[in-house]
Amino acid sequence: MTRRAADVLVVGGGLVGCALARALARRGASVTVAERGRTGEEASGAAAGFLSPQADFAVDGPLARLGVASRALYPTWVRAVARESGVDPHWRRRGMLYVAVSAAEERALAARVGWQRGLGWRVERVSARRARALVPGLGPAVRGGVFFPDDASVDNERLVVAAALAARRAGVTILEGCTVGRVLARGGRVSGVESTHGPLAAPAVVLAAGAWAAGVALARGVPRPAVVPVRGQMVVLRGLAGLVDRPLHGRDGYFAPRGDGRVLVGSTYEHVGFDKRVTAGAVGALLAMAERLVPATAGAHVEGVYAGLRPATRDGLPVVGAAPGAAGLWYACGLYRNGILLAPAIADAVADLVTSGTTRWPIEAFSPARAAARLIRRTRPGAGRARSRDPRRS
Amino acid sequence: MTRRAADVLVVGGGLVGCALARALARRGASVTVAERGRTGEEASGAAAGFLSPQADFAVDGPLARLGVASRALYPTWVRAVARESGVDPHWRRRGMLYVAVSAAEERALAARVGWQRGLGWRVERVSARRARALVPGLGPAVRGGVFFPDDASVDNERLVVAAALAARRAGVTILEGCTVGRVLARGGRVSGVESTHGPLAAPAVVLAAGAWAAGVALARGVPRPAVVPVRGQMVVLRGLAGLVDRPLHGRDGYFAPRGDGRVLVGSTYEHVGFDKRVTAGAVGALLAMAERLVPATAGAHVEGVYAGLRPATRDGLPVVGAAPGAAGLWYACGLYRNGILLAPAIADAVADLVTSGTTRWPIEAFSPARAAARLIRRTRPGAGRARSRDPRRS
Repeated sequence: MTRRAADVLVVGGGLVGCALARALARRGASVTVAERGRTGEEASGAAAGFLSPQADFAVDGPLARLGVASRALYPTWVRAVARESGVDPHWRRRGMLYVAVSAAEERALAARVGWQRGLGWRVERVSARRARALVPGLGPAVRGGVFFPDDASVDNERLVVAAALAARRAGVTILEGCTVGRVLARGGRVSGVESTHGPLAAPAVVLAAGAWAAGVALARGVPRPAVVPVRGQMVVLRGLAGLVDRPLHGRDGYFAPRGDGRVLVGSTYEHVGFDKRVTAGAVGALLAMAERLVPATAGAHVEGVYAGLRPATRDGLPVVGAAPGAAGLWYACGLYRNGILLAPAIADAVADLVTSGTTRWPIEAFSPARAAARLIRRTRPGAGRARSRDPRRS
Repeated sequence: MTRRAADVLVVGGGLVGCALARALARRGASVTVAERGRTGEEASGAAAGFLSPQADFAVDGPLARLGVASRALYPTWVRAVARESGVDPHWRRRGMLYVAVSAAEERALAARVGWQRGLGWRVERVSARRARALVPGLGPAVRGGVFFPDDASVDNERLVVAAALAARRAGVTILEGCTVGRVLARGGRVSGVESTHGPLAAPAVVLAAGAWAAGVALARGVPRPAVVPVRGQMVVLRGLAGLVDRPLHGRDGYFAPRGDGRVLVGSTYEHVGFDKRVTAGAVGALLAMAERLVPATAGAHVEGVYAGLRPATRDGLPVVGAAPGAAGLWYACGLYRNGILLAPAIADAVADLVTSGTTRWPIEAFSPARAAARLIRRTRPGAGRARSRDPRRS
C-alpha cells in the first residue's frame, strides 16, 4: 500500500458518516468517505426524520438522554449544514403528538409522562378534543394522548444530501460505489482498508456502515460490531394537507409529514436480512392503521412504497467508540431507529475520540467492548409476519 | 387542408385503434393512427388482460355473446399478431375460477351456470376442495365457486405493443404525441381532423379514443359518444408463484397472474374524472380482499400500484358503428371493461364497416344512434369512496 488516502477513512456515507466526516474536516483532518452505493440511499434516506426522543423512549436511559441532547444541537447544526450546502433540510419544531385508541394504550403513554416531567422535560397530556386541535385529521377512534412540544422533525432525505455537500465543501472526499471489504491492521494498529477502489491507506478508520457494519472483515481478534438489519416499510401519501401537518404517532405506526406535501406512513420491524422489498401484508396493515387514526387517509393518494434497513443491536444501544484490539479503529454503528436524531451528537463525539482520544459526550453505555456489541454469530434472517411495533419497546 | 394523411384516420392508439388499423391496412387501406400520448399507455396497458366473458357477465346479452365470439378469435388472431410483431403476448387458456366466500355469493354465481349451460358453454360448479386444487393459494374463507374452463387471458401490456408493431409492419403510420381536437366535415361528410400535428386529411375517421372519446369536437349536429372515464386501481404483486397461477375472481376483486411472475390485484370503479392517482383506501381494500381470498398475499411483494381509466357508457354497452349525421365518421368507443376481450371482433367489424359499409358481426345493440350512446351533458366527476365492485353488475 503506497497511497495515503486520508488522515481518517470513514466507511459509510449515510448521515452519520457524512456528519462525522464534516466534523473531522472542520477540525483540520483530511477525510475520505467510502460509500458502497450512493450517499443517503439506505436507512438515512428511508427514515421518517423524527427528532422525537421524548415520544420514542418509554423509559429513561442513556439513549433517551443522548437523544434529548442531540435534539438540542439540531437547530444550530442544521442551520450550519444548510448554509454550507445551500440545501434546506426542513427542520421543524412542531412537537410530536402520540395518541391512544384504547385504555391500555393510554396507560402505556401515561408512563412516559412521569419520568420525563421528573427530568424537567415538557410533556402535555391531551384530551381527544385537544388532540384534534393539534392534528385535525384525527378520527373518532382516538381517545387522547400525549403531546411532546419540544420534539421536532427534519426531512432526512434532504438532510443527508445537505450533509454530504457540506462535508465536500469542508474538503472531504466521498467515494461513491466504493465497497470496503476489510480493515487492514499491522501490529495491532489500523493501516487502512481494502476496497473496490483498491487499498486505501489511513491511520484511522471509522466504521459507520449502518446495517452493513458487520460485513466488513477486521483483523484477527477484533470483534465485529453486532449489527443486523431490521426492515422498516413505508407508504408515501399525498393529500393530507391541513389534516396531518405535524408528526403523529400511535402504538402501531406513525405519520411523518414532509415540507413538500408528502406524508410518510410507517413502519414495520422485520428480521429478514438484507431484503428491502415491500410486502402486501405490511402495506395493508399500515394503511389500516393509518385509516383508523386518520379516516381521510382513505382518500389520500399513494405516491410510493419503500423499505429501509435499520442497523439494530442486541441490546438496542448503539456501538460507538474505540474498537477493542485495534488501535485507530472506531465504531459509529448500530444506531437503529435513532441515526437521524443522534447524528450531530455522535459526529461530535467520534470526532473528539478520533482527534483527541477522549470525549465529554456520555457514551460509555455504547461501548464496543460490551458483550452485546460483539458479534458472536451470524444472525440468520427470521421468518414470519411483519410487526408494526418495535418488539423491544412499549 | 392540402395533405391527404390516409384513407382512414384512426383517433386513438390503444389496443382497439392499433388492431383496427392493422385490419384496415391488411385490406389495402392506407391508415394513420393519431395517439395523444404513447400507444398502450392508457387503459389498454392498465387492464387485467382477462378474456373471460363467462366469468364477467352475470346475464345473457349481446355483449356476453360478442365476448365469447371474440374470445374464440383470440388464438388465431394473437398468433398472427405475435408472428408479425415478434412479440409474444402470453395468451393462455387456463380458465377462470370465480370463488364465493358466502352463501349469497354462491347463489349469485349459481345464476351464471344456468343460462350459460343453456347456451352450450362449459361451466363447472366446484367445491372448496376442487377450487383449491385449481388455485392452491386459496384460504379457508373460500366456500367454493364456479370454474369457466374456456375463459383465457393475455398480457395486455405485451399485446398492445405487439398490435402496434404489427400495424406498423402492415404499413400503418402511428403518430404518437398527436392529439386530435376536432373532426372536420364538409357538407355532412368527414374530411379529416385538426390535430397538434396540424390538419390531417382523410375521407374516413374512426374514433377509438377510449375514455377521451367525448373530448373530440365534432361537426354541429353530430352527437359525441357518451363515454366517461371510470377509474380502476391496481396493485402489482410478486411472489405468488405456485399459489395463484390462473385467473382468479371474487365478488370484490381479482388476481391476474402474468407470465413474468407478477400478479395484478384489482380493481375499483370510481367516477373521478381524468384522475389516475392511486388512493390509500383503494390499495388497503384491495390488499384486504386479496389476503382474505389468498392468505399468502400478506407475504407477497408489492412491485407497484397504478390506475387506469375505463371508457364507460350509460347503458354499459359499447358505441360501435356509423356516427349519426356525418358520413365517413365511425365510432369504436365505450368498451369499458371489455376492450382487450373485444378488440379482435371490433377491429374486424369496424374494418368491415369502413371498407364496405356493412358487417356480419352482430353489433346492432351498440349503435351510436341509440339514446344512451349520445352525450347529453357533461358528466361531472362524482365524489365518494372507491367501490370494489362494478355497481352495474351482480
